[in-house]
Amino acid sequence: MAMIARRADLGQKVIRLSKREVHSLNPIIMSPSLVSLDLSDDWVPFSHPPSPPLFSSEQKTTVIDGKSIAEEIRTRIASEVREMNKSIGKVPGLAVVLVGQRRDSQTYVRNKIKACEEAGIRSAMAELPEDCTEEQAIRVLSQFNEDPSVHGLLVQLPLPPHLDEAKILSMVRLEKDVDGFHPLNMGHLAMREREPLFISCTPKGCVELLLRSGVEIMGKNAVVIGRSNIVGLPTSLLLQRYYATVTTVHAFTKRPEHITREADIVVAAAGVPNLVRGSWLKPGAVVIDVGTVPVEDRRSEHGYRLVGDVCYEEALGVASAITPVPGGVGPMTIAMLLSNTLDAAKRAYGLLNY
Amino acid sequence: MAMIARRADLGQKVIRLSKREVHSLNPIIMSPSLVSLDLSDDWVPFSHPPSPPLFSSEQKTTVIDGKSIAEEIRTRIASEVREMNKSIGKVPGLAVVLVGQRRDSQTYVRNKIKACEEAGIRSAMAELPEDCTEEQAIRVLSQFNEDPSVHGLLVQLPLPPHLDEAKILSMVRLEKDVDGFHPLNMGHLAMREREPLFISCTPKGCVELLLRSGVEIMGKNAVVIGRSNIVGLPTSLLLQRYYATVTTVHAFTKRPEHITREADIVVAAAGVPNLVRGSWLKPGAVVIDVGTVPVEDRRSEHGYRLVGDVCYEEALGVASAITPVPGGVGPMTIAMLLSNTLDAAKRAYGLLNY
Repeated sequence: MAMIARRADLGQKVIRLSKREVHSLNPIIMSPSLVSLDLSDDWVPFSHPPSPPLFSSEQKTTVIDGKSIAEEIRTRIASEVREMNKSIGKVPGLAVVLVGQRRDSQTYVRNKIKACEEAGIRSAMAELPEDCTEEQAIRVLSQFNEDPSVHGLLVQLPLPPHLDEAKILSMVRLEKDVDGFHPLNMGHLAMREREPLFISCTPKGCVELLLRSGVEIMGKNAVVIGRSNIVGLPTSLLLQRYYATVTTVHAFTKRPEHITREADIVVAAAGVPNLVRGSWLKPGAVVIDVGTVPVEDRRSEHGYRLVGDVCYEEALGVASAITPVPGGVGPMTIAMLLSNTLDAAKRAYGLLNY
Repeated sequence: MAMIARRADLGQKVIRLSKREVHSLNPIIMSPSLVSLDLSDDWVPFSHPPSPPLFSSEQKTTVIDGKSIAEEIRTRIASEVREMNKSIGKVPGLAVVLVGQRRDSQTYVRNKIKACEEAGIRSAMAELPEDCTEEQAIRVLSQFNEDPSVHGLLVQLPLPPHLDEAKILSMVRLEKDVDGFHPLNMGHLAMREREPLFISCTPKGCVELLLRSGVEIMGKNAVVIGRSNIVGLPTSLLLQRYYATVTTVHAFTKRPEHITREADIVVAAAGVPNLVRGSWLKPGAVVIDVGTVPVEDRRSEHGYRLVGDVCYEEALGVASAITPVPGGVGPMTIAMLLSNTLDAAKRAYGLLNY
């Protein structure tokens, strides 16, 4: 079954949170608190068939090869690291904090550390038990914060629910926040005439793919699907910095296909397999697919395969360019992490001007 | 002449900053610096006539009376301030730093201080000469930061160009940042599951007007015209927190009228008189006009009148509701400043939970 999804229960939610109630529960004048309005973005399956794709057999779709672009970038980083080592006898260092035993998190961390090794970047990892206390996590972070050989520091997400993610992420020293998740880095990314020290790796990878594929961003209509702190939000902010006209589509958006169909650039980051059908795309649109959800598949070697947010087969022949899953955005995220770590080290040693 | 505006010189800019050049000048991999891409949002007049308005004589347009809503809020704040004084013998205090002699800034500051007086809020003002040094400005801010009777602290913008606005605004202590311009407050506003200590006054006033006018925001398409740090950006972020699907239109947007015409809620904050014509609006849209530009008018008492971003006469009969200029958003901005100052004092005295 195609796992097309949308908030089927939106109507009910709206009733539960009518305008009068929103007003009486959250009168801004009494309090700026909006947390109570923080409903989750659950995209749930909807059943009616999608409209037929606007198929244009004349549209040639370029597949954006994230893997080889990422490799090129990693080679360049490796050579810069060697250069740094030769000239000042130092190499960049990345520290990763992993809490608990999630298999996916373990895989991500392993891949990051392997990529560091290949680029000549030192790496350190702290593994904490699932039931560790906030104090323990913060103590480990503080040690890495103080360690001058650690230039980049990240906490693998998600954290176990008993830990305060916001508090822990805010403990990462700004100059080492290579994930760009610190709210001050996010604020600087959002604001004009400000410079974040780091831009989150996945959004940066998406824009890098666009630029390297020769896609003009300025003046283009861009739709970002999803508004997570780690992908959707910073991608919207970054595209806007490049003068796109950005619309952020989320699970409460009515007729998302109608809005997406107006976009020259679509970044899909909802984490919902095959959410974006061919019929959602304007012919000629450039599609960046951030989604990578493992879906059971007995024919695959490991019993599952990774599926993107975009119905790839339907997008071929409609989009002018698309990133595949896997092999699109994923490899770029790691390349950008290495790039941020290199920048952090350069900055620490006075080799960057800011 | 109707001062409809748009980037006529966009084509030229695009040529100057072609994708290859963007790539070679700003390869993300080399540096996260985007400052060099920070082109100004100059909306310049364009000459071709607008398409005829989608006039619907059956659409009754409600005029949202910001002035009386703001008065009601200010009365409530005054009563809370009296209550606070009675129960703990303290009143909120606001400090304003004004640099230079701009007449408009002087008027704004005077209005803020007068509003404080009427609400029973203590106020203090520091006036610095136009040519003051950054150190002088920061010294004054530090004094207010340390003063426990000052709960809210703001720097009147714009600052003279020799002063580093970003640096100075970042000096305002987070707990006193009643303007909400500190990048950490902005980051928290942008991010999910985070709470800014303060939301900027004008955006907060806009949303307050919507809520009090019974406008449902969740699931609605909202277009914010303008992306300034002080209005456009935080308004987009705030509307998104209320589950609107937000598009930010700016001077580099192609066919802004086409995008705006899809919006259920339009917030115009470009500062360009009469930018938004009746034909830009979907019948039934709710229009919040933040623009207030003084335009010469010999028939007016002071030789000028304030003009909004929306062509008011054309919007009547198309919009379902609209804020007038003056008397719409303007009074709300000051009411929200008082509200933020009251919140700051409550927080300082442990009367708020956060």
